[in-house]
Amino acid sequence: MDGCPPRVPITAEEIQVELDRRRPGQSRITTRRDEADAVEILSGVHGGLTLGSPIALLVRNTDARSADYQEMRTVFRPSHADFTYQAKYGVRAAAGGGRASARETIGRVASGAIARKVLAAQAQVEIVAYVKQVQDLAATVDSGTVTRRDVDANIVRCPDAAVAGQMIALIDQARADGDSLGGVVEAVARHVPAGLGEPVFDKLHADLGKALLSIPACKGFEVGSGFAGTRLHGSEHNDTFYAENGRIRTRTNRSGGIQGGISNGEDIIVRAAFKPVATILREMETVDANGNPATLQPRGRHDPCVLPRAVPIVEAMMALVLADHFLRQRALG
Amino acid sequence: MDGCPPRVPITAEEIQVELDRRRPGQSRITTRRDEADAVEILSGVHGGLTLGSPIALLVRNTDARSADYQEMRTVFRPSHADFTYQAKYGVRAAAGGGRASARETIGRVASGAIARKVLAAQAQVEIVAYVKQVQDLAATVDSGTVTRRDVDANIVRCPDAAVAGQMIALIDQARADGDSLGGVVEAVARHVPAGLGEPVFDKLHADLGKALLSIPACKGFEVGSGFAGTRLHGSEHNDTFYAENGRIRTRTNRSGGIQGGISNGEDIIVRAAFKPVATILREMETVDANGNPATLQPRGRHDPCVLPRAVPIVEAMMALVLADHFLRQRALG
Amino acid sequence: MDGCPPRVPITAEEIQVELDRRRPGQSRITTRRDEADAVEILSGVHGGLTLGSPIALLVRNTDARSADYQEMRTVFRPSHADFTYQAKYGVRAAAGGGRASARETIGRVASGAIARKVLAAQAQVEIVAYVKQVQDLAATVDSGTVTRRDVDANIVRCPDAAVAGQMIALIDQARADGDSLGGVVEAVARHVPAGLGEPVFDKLHADLGKALLSIPACKGFEVGSGFAGTRLHGSEHNDTFYAENGRIRTRTNRSGGIQGGISNGEDIIVRAAFKPVATILREMETVDANGNPATLQPRGRHDPCVLPRAVPIVEAMMALVLADHFLRQRALG
Amino acid sequence: MDGCPPRVPITAEEIQVELDRRRPGQSRITTRRDEADAVEILSGVHGGLTLGSPIALLVRNTDARSADYQEMRTVFRPSHADFTYQAKYGVRAAAGGGRASARETIGRVASGAIARKVLAAQAQVEIVAYVKQVQDLAATVDSGTVTRRDVDANIVRCPDAAVAGQMIALIDQARADGDSLGGVVEAVARHVPAGLGEPVFDKLHADLGKALLSIPACKGFEVGSGFAGTRLHGSEHNDTFYAENGRIRTRTNRSGGIQGGISNGEDIIVRAAFKPVATILREMETVDANGNPATLQPRGRHDPCVLPRAVPIVEAMMALVLADHFLRQRALG
Repeated sequence: MDGCPPRVPITAEEIQVELDRRRPGQSRITTRRDEADAVEILSGVHGGLTLGSPIALLVRNTDARSADYQEMRTVFRPSHADFTYQAKYGVRAAAGGGRASARETIGRVASGAIARKVLAAQAQVEIVAYVKQVQDLAATVDSGTVTRRDVDANIVRCPDAAVAGQMIALIDQARADGDSLGGVVEAVARHVPAGLGEPVFDKLHADLGKALLSIPACKGFEVGSGFAGTRLHGSEHNDTFYAENGRIRTRTNRSGGIQGGISNGEDIIVRAAFKPVATILREMETVDANGNPATLQPRGRHDPCVLPRAVPIVEAMMALVLADHFLRQRALG
Repeated sequence: MDGCPPRVPITAEEIQVELDRRRPGQSRITTRRDEADAVEILSGVHGGLTLGSPIALLVRNTDARSADYQEMRTVFRPSHADFTYQAKYGVRAAAGGGRASARETIGRVASGAIARKVLAAQAQVEIVAYVKQVQDLAATVDSGTVTRRDVDANIVRCPDAAVAGQMIALIDQARADGDSLGGVVEAVARHVPAGLGEPVFDKLHADLGKALLSIPACKGFEVGSGFAGTRLHGSEHNDTFYAENGRIRTRTNRSGGIQGGISNGEDIIVRAAFKPVATILREMETVDANGNPATLQPRGRHDPCVLPRAVPIVEAMMALVLADHFLRQRALG
Repeated sequence: MDGCPPRVPITAEEIQVELDRRRPGQSRITTRRDEADAVEILSGVHGGLTLGSPIALLVRNTDARSADYQEMRTVFRPSHADFTYQAKYGVRAAAGGGRASARETIGRVASGAIARKVLAAQAQVEIVAYVKQVQDLAATVDSGTVTRRDVDANIVRCPDAAVAGQMIALIDQARADGDSLGGVVEAVARHVPAGLGEPVFDKLHADLGKALLSIPACKGFEVGSGFAGTRLHGSEHNDTFYAENGRIRTRTNRSGGIQGGISNGEDIIVRAAFKPVATILREMETVDANGNPATLQPRGRHDPCVLPRAVPIVEAMMALVLADHFLRQRALG
Repeated sequence: MDGCPPRVPITAEEIQVELDRRRPGQSRITTRRDEADAVEILSGVHGGLTLGSPIALLVRNTDARSADYQEMRTVFRPSHADFTYQAKYGVRAAAGGGRASARETIGRVASGAIARKVLAAQAQVEIVAYVKQVQDLAATVDSGTVTRRDVDANIVRCPDAAVAGQMIALIDQARADGDSLGGVVEAVARHVPAGLGEPVFDKLHADLGKALLSIPACKGFEVGSGFAGTRLHGSEHNDTFYAENGRIRTRTNRSGGIQGGISNGEDIIVRAAFKPVATILREMETVDANGNPATLQPRGRHDPCVLPRAVPIVEAMMALVLADHFLRQRALG
């Protein structure tokens, strides 16, 4: 992680808290692979403060069962990256899915923990993500007030308790069926100063979109009114300005806190769509590297719904993007 | 435009064709501001071939009516970038919306025209975008076969003729009402070689997402099954591999041609959500720079629905991203 | 030019002053090609202030005599870029030397003028470059006090009046002989705040080195004691610290104002070596594109010694690098 | 290390060979600190081949004696980065010099080893660096034929055996005196294809210059004729083209293999000036963080002349730059 300001207080324990929210085996609805994901700070932090120089963090794999991946050496799992990596590189490390494994999100969460500290210490920004939808079950959440405590009150990380119970039942059923489920994570960033984002290509929501779309299994992104907003008239969609205690605000927030690619000081609200993960415990037809038909047997451990574990990843990516734009804006003086 | 390979045939006329699809005043459903948007190639092209060195293109404004923007100097238009630019920079060029004006998309379309040529000449890639939805009206389009001729067959650029007629009527009505409409542009890239995209942050769909989200008024992006795919089970969503004439293909394409962030050789399919544009010809409540209440009078010219003009911009951004990844992949040898 | 802070006062006239120091035909010892190099600000500046958004500047060629370059289409001029461009791109614009023409330094000087304003307005930095050596003639200059007025007091831009006269005579002789001369430009940046520069790859002097080495005809770079410093012992070379009015300073400045890649608040002193330019008015043996022997006839106009015109280019590049690092440092808070 | 092509054969042992040439304690004329610098490949290599995904390498510190650095917590060592890091970051890790320690060059040499393999496997490039000068002792070396075997034939890494003996005696004397020496490393890259380098800012020698200047203690850089070339006339300096077996070559190589910033296929020849290192075993006057006078006592271990250990670092940086430009050029098709 390069570019972190100096003198930001951070400890391995604070990073670990975030990693523990992402790690497998944390509850009965996540994969049963169990890894401690213990982080070691290799450089860039001294005496509990960032030094300003690059921060290197190390988390070693401990529970990789290469045998589970033996079959992948020769056949391509559907909707995984086996085939595309082979096509791109002409070589791949099959064990654990190699670089395409979602274990790479450990790095995102760990560095996101530091970005959160920068934002909290230097700009009072707070970021909360939560499961908004699992398959057809949609939660009702007040993005203006929801807290991490609300989110972590249940294992599905949905702050709408009633719907959360239904979601858990749905996930339990999917696990029993050897199947998987998708859904939507919503995230809010509050107290973001107005003025973050660049005018053309590096618009704030464009960078947030790229960051969230780069998370494994993410297939869609929207800010503010998003796709639903396309059904409104401009006269309904525009956010009217007013002044409150000398601060210019908007009465509605269909813009999602970003106008012309730049934050306007209202809450930033985004949503990310996650497909049902490709790994299921069912027999699947496929081909091998030579194009010959093959059958994948159900095997190993699986995560019937990644949404609860995606929550800290979404928060981390959002923190990294906001911290980056916060520093860019500060450079302007 | 930097990084373009040498010896790609390109003329100002070919760029102009793309610009003419974007320019205002091209039909009765776009803004009546009328600008020729004539492009001049300043450097980087000689004798009809790119030189490999940076290409500079110039299109001058001709029909800016600064008087139309006089009011903007003092009051903030709702859901425009007036307030956020002021907050970010502490200064702004009010006339024409300054850098926040969608006129900046001329540069995108012009450079996209060159990227299209690179892709067509060196990789046989073809890109077609079209209006998929206007407000509640959704078209049925076969992304596998649709051509630009189909798209340009009507002024709304929707290849479903029946729905296109309804869309035009809806836009006419919005113009009469001084209001505006949003919608969705869908785009397909065919014959993209397998292997484009980077494994972690620069996933192909993440870069496409950023590129499309950076277009003015774009509030959402999805690839393949997108948000709708979150309602399926993994067993329904996975794309089964098979071999066809020695080439490995998938029977369905919920992945949208991208798996693990890397193209798999199937058609790449993306969608971008455009909000109803903020400029409407109605009286609007707002505030001035001091936070005092103000009323904006309807004035100037407006585009009741930017979707038809967004089509060439979406194509251009898609071409730029694909060309960039095509060159990155070629670097790997 | 992207990344310039907003609200920096700048006018086309201020940019023109710098361009006039670079332009050909400014004195009898420069090339007699005579171009006004008039700059037009296309974007990013409004009401005499930078807007924070990208600044585009345009200077058109006016005195290109393509006929002078006719021969270059088929033969390779020695120690020019004709052959390497052909090897790299397989195509080139022979007229005027194409992209390899030193006319590209107009862009450097124009954007450097803006960077100077940023540094002067926000950090009180002042940059002065001057001709330190022409062939064997070396000047004595006090880098701590030299001003632009001193530099521009004579046409060779060497503040040592006695040596300047000898240099001018040497250049006059070279012109009469149809030959060319090299030399060294020295530059000083004063009042640079301590703390600019990055610890590993983007060391301040490494970025300055790259910037100056990228100027046409530059073949060497050194900071502080440079190559001469390699002949000292460590006990002689080290700069001893002391405190002066609460500020920590060094008694000597062999470090050239940069220690560990980061500015220490002392004057930054660098030198750039310029080879004798390749264009001479003498018959030269060479080959054509097919490798057949060819003879180049003396023709066109030439600059017997580019050093005086290199002075504003060196200043501009130094300003751009320092402004970049100044903004990077400000981002750290 | 990101951007490495896939399927390049590399082993930890091959990287270790390079690290062993850099490590302290390798001979009596280097520092007596003794560290094995054993490298572990964490990712990006599988079955002896690069995977195309990022390569992470880990070398842990083992012989850091923090006690040696106790004094540095409070006083600033002359011509070190202690003061500038404090000024930049307001915090620093004193032990071992922190990020400013030359131990960071381990990462350069390790990744350079991989870049060498890419260049050797895909472009037949070979790179040899050697000590050209120590203080006033200059070696005579034929850059066209010198081999690593010649270089490693003695502990000072100077292929001129007679001068090497004198250099070793000089270094022994400096150690006995508790003093240090500087010098010049020269490097040659042979069989570099014509066409590498970018036309304006990223000229090949500008990137090489930045890379070498970023090495600790490097104060100067030159390519080809460099500073000495400034004393020639253009008629003497120009490299005449001729054809040899269908290949266009130059009779002399004052350009150092680079013309207009782009390689011309001749040997690339560069030189880097290294100051006498700042750590000496003598009492030194300085100040503490409050500006109070302080005296540094001679203590710890020191490297009287870093030149022999700089040789593999120079080779590594050169390999990294050339590999980068080789891939950039391949992207152009």
